[in-house]
Amino acid sequence: MQATPATAPIHADINPFPIEDQQLCIGRLPLSQLAERVGSTPFYAYDRALLDKRVERLRQALPKAIKLHYAMKANPMPALVCHMASLVDGIDVASAGELKVALDAGADPHEISFAGPGKRREELKQAVAAGVLINIESFREVAELAAIQAESGRKARLAVRVNPDFELKSSGMKMGGGPKQFGVDAERVPELLAQIGEAGLGFEGFHLFAGSQNLKPEAIVEAQCKSYELAVRLAEAAPAPVRFLNLGGGFGIPYFPGEQPLELASIGANLAGLAERAARDLPHAELVIELGRYLVGEAGVYVARVIDRKVSRGQVFLITDGGLHHHLSASGNFGQVIRKNYPVAIGNRMHAPQREIASVVGPLCTPLDLLADRMELPVAEVGDLVVVFQSGAYGLSASPQGFLGHPQPCEVLV
Amino acid sequence: MQATPATAPIHADINPFPIEDQQLCIGRLPLSQLAERVGSTPFYAYDRALLDKRVERLRQALPKAIKLHYAMKANPMPALVCHMASLVDGIDVASAGELKVALDAGADPHEISFAGPGKRREELKQAVAAGVLINIESFREVAELAAIQAESGRKARLAVRVNPDFELKSSGMKMGGGPKQFGVDAERVPELLAQIGEAGLGFEGFHLFAGSQNLKPEAIVEAQCKSYELAVRLAEAAPAPVRFLNLGGGFGIPYFPGEQPLELASIGANLAGLAERAARDLPHAELVIELGRYLVGEAGVYVARVIDRKVSRGQVFLITDGGLHHHLSASGNFGQVIRKNYPVAIGNRMHAPQREIASVVGPLCTPLDLLADRMELPVAEVGDLVVVFQSGAYGLSASPQGFLGHPQPCEVLV
Repeated sequence: MQATPATAPIHADINPFPIEDQQLCIGRLPLSQLAERVGSTPFYAYDRALLDKRVERLRQALPKAIKLHYAMKANPMPALVCHMASLVDGIDVASAGELKVALDAGADPHEISFAGPGKRREELKQAVAAGVLINIESFREVAELAAIQAESGRKARLAVRVNPDFELKSSGMKMGGGPKQFGVDAERVPELLAQIGEAGLGFEGFHLFAGSQNLKPEAIVEAQCKSYELAVRLAEAAPAPVRFLNLGGGFGIPYFPGEQPLELASIGANLAGLAERAARDLPHAELVIELGRYLVGEAGVYVARVIDRKVSRGQVFLITDGGLHHHLSASGNFGQVIRKNYPVAIGNRMHAPQREIASVVGPLCTPLDLLADRMELPVAEVGDLVVVFQSGAYGLSASPQGFLGHPQPCEVLV
Repeated sequence: MQATPATAPIHADINPFPIEDQQLCIGRLPLSQLAERVGSTPFYAYDRALLDKRVERLRQALPKAIKLHYAMKANPMPALVCHMASLVDGIDVASAGELKVALDAGADPHEISFAGPGKRREELKQAVAAGVLINIESFREVAELAAIQAESGRKARLAVRVNPDFELKSSGMKMGGGPKQFGVDAERVPELLAQIGEAGLGFEGFHLFAGSQNLKPEAIVEAQCKSYELAVRLAEAAPAPVRFLNLGGGFGIPYFPGEQPLELASIGANLAGLAERAARDLPHAELVIELGRYLVGEAGVYVARVIDRKVSRGQVFLITDGGLHHHLSASGNFGQVIRKNYPVAIGNRMHAPQREIASVVGPLCTPLDLLADRMELPVAEVGDLVVVFQSGAYGLSASPQGFLGHPQPCEVLV
């Protein structure tokens, strides 16, 4: 007898949390107990041990020569940034606000880098005063930094963010190639490097970031090779030896049915090759990869309580106290073109045999407030806890928390 | 000589603000002066006189018998809610948080109504204590209110939100018809009304809300007629005379090229007819329409300053200090399937003759942060003020203000 073909793609089995007596355990606590400890729903919970494990596995897969940075835009919760700062080699920030959190977290300023296309003069001043590395995104920023260095007497440390002449294939977001607001077009970088040299600014290297949320190792390998080669070419025009080469990130995590976790083996092998070449081509350079979502995304869940259970014309709706105001990404309203379901579970009925097709919605007066659209789930009742997986990155901070005036959710690191 | 056909749809000429010496004037202040008064960019500014004018024109177009409610979810800025409370006949709130703002604004509790699919018990208690009208969205809410009424000895005032058996055609968002999380399916309302009667709750009427952001008067007229007829039918099973009939809203405003302002004449004529019929069919009923976006959307602008001007491979980018973290809707990341440009201008160069094609982006490290995609604009320089029109509704409160840790914007009512 032949296997029947799957009728529709399903979510990969990626739940990294143990299950005890039907309860999902986060930070070793059964979910119902964790909810009591938090004291209110909805909340985000991030599992410390999973963060550790993720960094450890990544270190095993990558050559020792590669430095690992955490891009805190993915999750800026102060306690989590503090924990990550103890695990990785540097923190990447995207604003003066994030810079403050990174410094408070005890990150070494020398290993903090600051990128972003519209840095205000005040932000650049703060970055120079903090002594962090500034990823230059335009000719204007070079002129601003020259003035700030002259005024303050403090050396401005900078790397050039390059808008490459290629794209990261298969990325969720493309951030390089063609006309872009990010970085300086590769062909104009030699001119920029000359200005940096003339101004006597502290040139340290290059930053290339081709795209994000990529699940195809071959596309990441290709982008890293091309980024490396472009950097070596551009280094010829540099006013000082390259000491820092950020090859970007782009490592994706599986969110939707049909997606599989990223295979690291070929990426690790390729980076080992690049590290060897760099020892010859750019002997003073540290090779860095910068990851946000990949480090923290799978360690986090969003938890909301079922407030009402409603059957409307045959369709089951679980109405929860959480929704798009806390988790815009899971609702599909942040960068997705076609709404797809995040993996969702009933966290206190993990192995319940009775299942049904249900939609999970929030309390907002808008049909956009949809956490799960007609998914197969255990039959849930008022008081049960809905869990949205893969919620450690671009969750709370990427959501319109003030929308409709509902209470703020908690965040816990357990 | 024949006129050449337009090659592409353009934005309707809807700018309601006067222009003086190239400056857009908000609340009679030239934009550069207003920016100095505010003291920082970016900011939202709402024009008090335009709010007055909008309500006045609407009152002229609608029959006197129709009561006008402001749905404050569109813009919950406290000063603006306070101003609106003085202009309209009631305020509609969507959470206990909004209820607090409405009460603080001095709105008469008797004229406040509270809707939302997942009202928590605490919220229902607050609403009963405040004496506002609660729009029931499920059987559970009836049971909760019965318990709260018994415990507190305070009469719970309620209306039944009905999920009709039709949809509002051509709406941006459909909120009725088919299976929905909103309201109670029309066919189950008689059963619900019986429970309300048995529990001795203070039944006052019905709420029907078929959809929002509709620019077709004929679709609104049809929905209002059908809503009215459904309410009359359902009233037969009501435990008390209908005193309140909310026919919803759905009045749209033009955002995108090709869209035109909503014509009110036929809507006004239809409502006059319905008011006459109601005098016979439901002699105790007040007819209400509930508008949010239509009342405040066009009175507001979002203003951001140009921080950098960059030409990347022939494309002009104006990089501003504002972006999707303050105005998610204008970036296309809130409910839009295909990104389209809001109307945008350079507010201190309104009639500048030199024009170019430019993209307006924000300071965030994501390609989603796009306020204008290759629009024809006056040639702008660093320091200029970019204005996004039609920003009085679903702007700041619907945006992920914490994203990437940039400063919060100001809001002013001028």
